[in-house]
Amino acid sequence: MRNNTTPWVQTVSLTAPTLKDNTADADRLIQALRPFLHTSTIDIDLDLLKILPTVLRESRFRVRCILFKEKHQWVLIGITRAEDAPRAAGLAVDLGTTRVELRLLDLTTARTLAETAFTNPQESMGPDILARIHFTEKKDGLRELNRLIVSGLNNAIAGLCDSNQLEPEQIYALSVAGNTTMTHLFMGLEPRWIIREPYIPVVNHPGIRRADALGLEVNPRARVLIFPNIGSYFGGDLIAGILYSRIHKKAQTGILVDVGTNAEVVLGNENWLIACAGAAGPALEGGVTRMGMTAGPGVIDQISVEPDTLEFNVHTIDDLPPRGICGSGVIDLAAQLFRSGMIDIRGKFVPTICGSKIKKIDGLLHLVIVPAERSASRSDLTISQADLDSLIRSKAAMYTILETLTASVGIAPQDLESFYVAGTFGAFINPQSAISIGMLPDLPLDRYKTLGNSSLGGAALALQSEKYHDQIDQIRDRITYLELNVNQDFMNRFSAAKFLPHTDTKLFPSVKVVQKMS
Amino acid sequence: MRNNTTPWVQTVSLTAPTLKDNTADADRLIQALRPFLHTSTIDIDLDLLKILPTVLRESRFRVRCILFKEKHQWVLIGITRAEDAPRAAGLAVDLGTTRVELRLLDLTTARTLAETAFTNPQESMGPDILARIHFTEKKDGLRELNRLIVSGLNNAIAGLCDSNQLEPEQIYALSVAGNTTMTHLFMGLEPRWIIREPYIPVVNHPGIRRADALGLEVNPRARVLIFPNIGSYFGGDLIAGILYSRIHKKAQTGILVDVGTNAEVVLGNENWLIACAGAAGPALEGGVTRMGMTAGPGVIDQISVEPDTLEFNVHTIDDLPPRGICGSGVIDLAAQLFRSGMIDIRGKFVPTICGSKIKKIDGLLHLVIVPAERSASRSDLTISQADLDSLIRSKAAMYTILETLTASVGIAPQDLESFYVAGTFGAFINPQSAISIGMLPDLPLDRYKTLGNSSLGGAALALQSEKYHDQIDQIRDRITYLELNVNQDFMNRFSAAKFLPHTDTKLFPSVKVVQKMS
Repeated sequence: MRNNTTPWVQTVSLTAPTLKDNTADADRLIQALRPFLHTSTIDIDLDLLKILPTVLRESRFRVRCILFKEKHQWVLIGITRAEDAPRAAGLAVDLGTTRVELRLLDLTTARTLAETAFTNPQESMGPDILARIHFTEKKDGLRELNRLIVSGLNNAIAGLCDSNQLEPEQIYALSVAGNTTMTHLFMGLEPRWIIREPYIPVVNHPGIRRADALGLEVNPRARVLIFPNIGSYFGGDLIAGILYSRIHKKAQTGILVDVGTNAEVVLGNENWLIACAGAAGPALEGGVTRMGMTAGPGVIDQISVEPDTLEFNVHTIDDLPPRGICGSGVIDLAAQLFRSGMIDIRGKFVPTICGSKIKKIDGLLHLVIVPAERSASRSDLTISQADLDSLIRSKAAMYTILETLTASVGIAPQDLESFYVAGTFGAFINPQSAISIGMLPDLPLDRYKTLGNSSLGGAALALQSEKYHDQIDQIRDRITYLELNVNQDFMNRFSAAKFLPHTDTKLFPSVKVVQKMS
Repeated sequence: MRNNTTPWVQTVSLTAPTLKDNTADADRLIQALRPFLHTSTIDIDLDLLKILPTVLRESRFRVRCILFKEKHQWVLIGITRAEDAPRAAGLAVDLGTTRVELRLLDLTTARTLAETAFTNPQESMGPDILARIHFTEKKDGLRELNRLIVSGLNNAIAGLCDSNQLEPEQIYALSVAGNTTMTHLFMGLEPRWIIREPYIPVVNHPGIRRADALGLEVNPRARVLIFPNIGSYFGGDLIAGILYSRIHKKAQTGILVDVGTNAEVVLGNENWLIACAGAAGPALEGGVTRMGMTAGPGVIDQISVEPDTLEFNVHTIDDLPPRGICGSGVIDLAAQLFRSGMIDIRGKFVPTICGSKIKKIDGLLHLVIVPAERSASRSDLTISQADLDSLIRSKAAMYTILETLTASVGIAPQDLESFYVAGTFGAFINPQSAISIGMLPDLPLDRYKTLGNSSLGGAALALQSEKYHDQIDQIRDRITYLELNVNQDFMNRFSAAKFLPHTDTKLFPSVKVVQKMS
């Protein structure tokens, strides 16, 4: 018996049959597997039964089995002889509206073999969830969106297999975490009622499905765990994120924030979880403002202002000439502009301080961050008042969501013991800057932890042990969902949060406000 | 809520979703079904999820659901609006080596709608199990035998549907009981090791499979319960027979005898079951001797001998001119010949008593039962010494099996409280005559009960309630299998049973032996 770190791959030796022990091949195999899986029920797919007698006898009854845990039973999905058994792989998928990320794992050790990502090809049919759901209502629209995402996945899988010397048939298990609509489009389920009152998905618990039924070009018997959702606006991606953050396993109360199309926030500990999701505004989507871009070579990711000269010191990725600014750069920028007095507590430019850096373009005030002669494009890199207004609305929405959620359980954002920030937003943000503009609460910086792609991380855990499958269901069933749209306090809180850092500066004692409204 | 006699068909009304209760469609349906199925786990096939939102809304959330019980969960296999829901049907199949019998049921009431049968089309490739297994070892042989039985079933299903105004899609549940080899051929599993020491089937518990995976042209989601086997020589057909006989539920010990290619015998009660199977000889196969034929118009089914004149009084089915003799007729005949002294205790003709009825044809003695002038074919209907010898061997094998099995638990055949005789053999046999020749033990006649096609009967029960599914597994797991081939007493007992009624006449007190060996 080989030592395994995961239960999915088991090598077993069967006693050969005799006249005194004429148990059938399948039942003999199940008997041999039972002690390792601690279960009485192991099912074998029909097409494996067809090859079983030959595999058992050619391997002299020593075989390597690939298994997966379904709700109430284990299923055998692959069997080969134990000697020189080819690698068994798993694939975790974060099924984003904009971007799809894949992690290929060795199913025996749960070690990462490779990662890849691609732009969701459904974007060509609709940039956001709403547009895509409307697209499904055209003739064959759902079929087309389903085809796009499935063939996108199949292309990515083929690429991953190519570059890792794998056949697609060697992928035996998948886990897919996506928001509720993306999960529906992936499964070919009608998303029509998700956006219509009272906002009803087809399914909350998509369960475990066969890969061939979903059109995935991996081992046809591969099992696909699809993360459950809580409703139309709280999807499997966030449940995967909670699983990855482990807030559901800790005694002290923590919070998990994931900003994508919506800001999705979960607060809780080992005893309870409460969640809400709200539109945080397009300014934060993907961690970038409308004027910004995603991080990449030549993109400004850090920025500071010389206190005396008010000159900008920009840092770009790979130290290339600046060609744009990413989300973390914009938040840094707003924090620095505020600290230096170049914007006021409403986020409005203060022309007397900005001086010659202010330009009017098409009737709108712009602040030049990098002059034309130093930019990659040889034209000024600027931020407009409208960009700043949008950022202010987004940060106010973010803080209001945090405040509303914590208030609902009788605590303040400042009481949180740990603060997990997930997603692209979390990967690049500087918490100090986010606190300075009142986007995140004024906690000691060591309480902030970035998780990276927590949805992908949670999906990968689901391929590591079946104990996580139970945790997924426990998380899903334990969450209380707070409906933000029907909360009357929200608009009042939002108005108070539309100032830098906040109308109530006592909430941000570490932020030194140098200027009053002009 | 309509009253149902079976759990498979449930009509439920769901509360319509609201903002306060935004459970997804699938989860809402499962909640509504749960109280009726007493389970927490109900799975919904992916293709039903695709139509679910539309069906629920068009039916105003009142739907008729077709369900089936798998090992640890219920599965939803069909859903329509509750009003004017088309009939849901089930199909029980007795998968015989020679003959396949089907019973179409209303799945809501478990009432029989129709029956049909066809000759197993695999016969053209091999008359018996052994020949067919050898045929599977040719190139594409297994595929061909699998295709033959599956298309035979599909033809019969199409015919049943046609004559009962059903679409094949309305068949949602099937149960299939066959011997171990037929079950393997039906599932496309390699039967090669069934006939090779140590005689190992691919599977003992074939479980519940989707109809489309088996190639059956019914509802693709229909579930097919395939009866388990105990080994190569003790198949699902007999387990279905036990289920139907109910010997496994009774306090008093009973016996079930099914004679087909093998004589299969099960002895037991609510506490234990012991079984064996043995070759009873071709003379009993299908309940007919080699010279006989299956029952039909003009076939002799009862026969008596005038004590004074030794003339035969024959009764034919439909009172037509006699054209042959069926199994029950041959057993009657042997009993009468023995009683009248026309054959001796070894089953040999006594020429002095038979007189002019004896004829020598091709060097072999024949007894004329119906002279040419009164037969349908206008030639003599006769029975040969070889036919009688074959019958004697078969009846001796039968009795020896019964004696060996009862002896193994310390009782005698004469102690049995109930004696169930299944199959064609059981349907036509006259127990009085069978006792007279020492084929069946000398029990009061009211202890004999014929079951008809008990395998089909058991298969039909499996479509009536899921409680029978548990009983099937209990029967399978509770049976002790007695291997006759390795039992040393068998040949001694067999020799003693080759006399009429037996060398030990005390075993047959009701049989008056009128003649000693000549």
